[in-house]
Amino acid sequence: MEFSTKQIAEMLGGSVEGNPDLKLKNFNKIESAGPDALTFLSNPKYAHFLYSTQAGAVLVANDFVPEHEVSTTLIRVENPYAALAQLMRMADALLNTHPCGIEQPSFIAEGVEIAPDCYVGAFAYVGPGAHIAPGVKIYPQAYVGRGVSIGANTIIYPGAKIYHGCRIGANCIIHAGAVIGADGFGFAPEPDGTYSKIPQLGIVEIADNVEIGANTTIDRATMGHTSVGKGTKLDNLIQVAHNVEIGQNTVMASQSGIAGSAKIGSNCMIGGQVGIAGHITIGNKVNIGAQSGIHATTPDGQTIMGYPAINARQWMRNSAYVNRISELFQRVTTLEKNCKK
Amino acid sequence: MEFSTKQIAEMLGGSVEGNPDLKLKNFNKIESAGPDALTFLSNPKYAHFLYSTQAGAVLVANDFVPEHEVSTTLIRVENPYAALAQLMRMADALLNTHPCGIEQPSFIAEGVEIAPDCYVGAFAYVGPGAHIAPGVKIYPQAYVGRGVSIGANTIIYPGAKIYHGCRIGANCIIHAGAVIGADGFGFAPEPDGTYSKIPQLGIVEIADNVEIGANTTIDRATMGHTSVGKGTKLDNLIQVAHNVEIGQNTVMASQSGIAGSAKIGSNCMIGGQVGIAGHITIGNKVNIGAQSGIHATTPDGQTIMGYPAINARQWMRNSAYVNRISELFQRVTTLEKNCKK
Amino acid sequence: MEFSTKQIAEMLGGSVEGNPDLKLKNFNKIESAGPDALTFLSNPKYAHFLYSTQAGAVLVANDFVPEHEVSTTLIRVENPYAALAQLMRMADALLNTHPCGIEQPSFIAEGVEIAPDCYVGAFAYVGPGAHIAPGVKIYPQAYVGRGVSIGANTIIYPGAKIYHGCRIGANCIIHAGAVIGADGFGFAPEPDGTYSKIPQLGIVEIADNVEIGANTTIDRATMGHTSVGKGTKLDNLIQVAHNVEIGQNTVMASQSGIAGSAKIGSNCMIGGQVGIAGHITIGNKVNIGAQSGIHATTPDGQTIMGYPAINARQWMRNSAYVNRISELFQRVTTLEKNCKK
Repeated sequence: MEFSTKQIAEMLGGSVEGNPDLKLKNFNKIESAGPDALTFLSNPKYAHFLYSTQAGAVLVANDFVPEHEVSTTLIRVENPYAALAQLMRMADALLNTHPCGIEQPSFIAEGVEIAPDCYVGAFAYVGPGAHIAPGVKIYPQAYVGRGVSIGANTIIYPGAKIYHGCRIGANCIIHAGAVIGADGFGFAPEPDGTYSKIPQLGIVEIADNVEIGANTTIDRATMGHTSVGKGTKLDNLIQVAHNVEIGQNTVMASQSGIAGSAKIGSNCMIGGQVGIAGHITIGNKVNIGAQSGIHATTPDGQTIMGYPAINARQWMRNSAYVNRISELFQRVTTLEKNCKK
Repeated sequence: MEFSTKQIAEMLGGSVEGNPDLKLKNFNKIESAGPDALTFLSNPKYAHFLYSTQAGAVLVANDFVPEHEVSTTLIRVENPYAALAQLMRMADALLNTHPCGIEQPSFIAEGVEIAPDCYVGAFAYVGPGAHIAPGVKIYPQAYVGRGVSIGANTIIYPGAKIYHGCRIGANCIIHAGAVIGADGFGFAPEPDGTYSKIPQLGIVEIADNVEIGANTTIDRATMGHTSVGKGTKLDNLIQVAHNVEIGQNTVMASQSGIAGSAKIGSNCMIGGQVGIAGHITIGNKVNIGAQSGIHATTPDGQTIMGYPAINARQWMRNSAYVNRISELFQRVTTLEKNCKK
Repeated sequence: MEFSTKQIAEMLGGSVEGNPDLKLKNFNKIESAGPDALTFLSNPKYAHFLYSTQAGAVLVANDFVPEHEVSTTLIRVENPYAALAQLMRMADALLNTHPCGIEQPSFIAEGVEIAPDCYVGAFAYVGPGAHIAPGVKIYPQAYVGRGVSIGANTIIYPGAKIYHGCRIGANCIIHAGAVIGADGFGFAPEPDGTYSKIPQLGIVEIADNVEIGANTTIDRATMGHTSVGKGTKLDNLIQVAHNVEIGQNTVMASQSGIAGSAKIGSNCMIGGQVGIAGHITIGNKVNIGAQSGIHATTPDGQTIMGYPAINARQWMRNSAYVNRISELFQRVTTLEKNCKK
């Protein structure tokens, strides 16, 4: 794929300042782009790179005024970051077309219908009674258990595993190594100290437009379903325990975990390595700082942090005070001496 | 599968209050059960759902007295939760029968014997010299390395990987994506700043009745074995480093990690996202709160929490005081002013 | 494999004290070794085991003086631990030879060349345009996407997944279940509360001599590459987000995570369960204690710890003071009473 600066400017409704015939082949960050790469300048923090960049061309805002001479070609647009994202989506659509058809050897149980625009990669397994909608892409070595249903255009990347009976919506992306529907961690303690397994008879239900990161695990419910709402995005290595319900458009960063039966609202933003206790409720639009531990039900709109988590500002203030705690001990010791006098 | 309320009451030695001929098809939580579902009421916290539930029938205790009129059918039993677990085990045995036989294509090394009641799924790999006991179920895409032994009736779910030489007991469950026996993280620093690998020649040894969660990793020992004792249950995404020894009937929640050569006792309860340092010993019946960091050997029977972990009550008290630390700074400042007078 | 104590002493340039004809078959820890095992004594903490060990022979330092009578055979060498590591490498080379050849069924795209000393296991997938150098070992069920390049003698263990276009150096080890090159977690918030995916068009680039632990995930860059420098060793279940750059010879323990666009220096030592925030820079030779949370750029050579991380000694001092915080509250209350008088 190759476009000239002029062609790119036309696609974006922008204008070229410099060489209009320069051929560009890829995208890169401003500090590491080469002469055949397009880059962008959006954050003023990176502006100093503009004067030394090796990039063929740089997307800048219409009103951007350089402070020094610029040797690279500029493409001026309304919003450089949005323009870049638009170009990246176009490039992605051109470059990363998913395959169609059934690669051999793969395993598709008798009676399962696979539409011609689907892909089933080599060594993929589709169990009996699975329902695979049109446009679904099942990459090599993925596992779709018996009775699983997968909505239209969903992509299952290599080696993802979906246990029996789970339901995945349309336009979802399940990354490599994700495990959907393994048994919830449910055991009844016996008088002799052993544990007996409580069967996990429920399923996992994932709504449309959900993305699930690599090696993330979402356990099936004891009864009913563990659910992930429409448009929610989960990063890599996340744990979602049995019976959890997550709302819509909630984003959750890597290595966070939600314990059993917790309910998470919609439009939350949850940092990395957060732990959420079982059986509590997190409201809508709650923001949780990285590495926090949430032990209690939290109302809508809160921004919380810490272990145990409290209001984020208060936590930051407390942390600053804790860093001065030795000073406080000394001041108290001094006071005690003075008071004795 | 379908049973009447009367049939269920008979199975459980209970009695029906309401419609004895109602057909029930599944289980669900009291707040989301539909007219063909059986649910239960055990925790009084959920009692208010009884008066609005759509469930066909509800298991309640013999001595339960409703506060309002109830429109659903009740099945009275001694212990509703235990009765439900009993029914769920029966349903599980009926519904979730594991397959038998060898699916093609799979890879079974020459000379490995597979009993007729075993299952080897498509794309599963069983290496040379592996010993597979009767009743073992090896799901699709699982990997059983050379010389691995697996005890009777153990289930290896899709895509679990067991490296060469490891030993798994009987009646174990290894969930999808778990990795048993990868190399321990052992490197010797060289004078030039590089690291040279120390071969990890030991194995992992897992006793009977152990359950290992999805994407959990248990590394092989440098020498000898990393071991997990009988009846121990590990949740998803747990890390067990090389040379670790875990006792019997210990339960460990998701995303916790145990560093190299630590010893964990029996009958411990370890919360999620806990970190346990290397080369320390945790006694028997130790309870560890979620997200704690354990840096020191801990005697039997302790309940600990925090980072670094201390007695759980003391930690909770300290946390409450830390939340008031700005107040303390102010009080000291006031005292300093007053003392100067 | 079997060697006599005399043969072992000759290989190591050491001397036998005891039975020179004893046959040894394996290695083990001093406390659990049996009569056909060789063990070592390096750490004086373990010296008391020498008098009760069942080991056939024990490597000890030339200048070691036993305090009691010893019934086992001693092999005296300059440095027992280094001698053991040398023997283990020899044993590893003898015992753990990797297979050669192409097992069937496997999937190798047309036009991909596989040298005779390579191994491609059953159910492994090698996509179109992949470049596989001589000596590469691709274990069963591993996935090598289109256009991936893998350097000489690199080992890809069972079920590891490498997405399209990523580049892996020579002499690397990628453990089971690791996912290299899944999409970075990049989404643009839309006015209606939904998120639109930002295509991740970059790759992951891993230099030579890198080891990647089981189920670790390294995301592809938005543009350009996420990179891991020469000789760096990552343990299991680690998250490396998009656009991260890690230097050379850095070691990172299990379950740590690095958020997007962070830069990590060379020769760092990072403990387990550490979280590193996005867009910050960690210098060279930085040591980070387990479970720390790093929120800020950190210069070369620091040793830091805590959440948020500070100088490790200061953090330990603060933690000790926090454990006495209730005492401080009481002292201040006492002062307030006394001052009022």
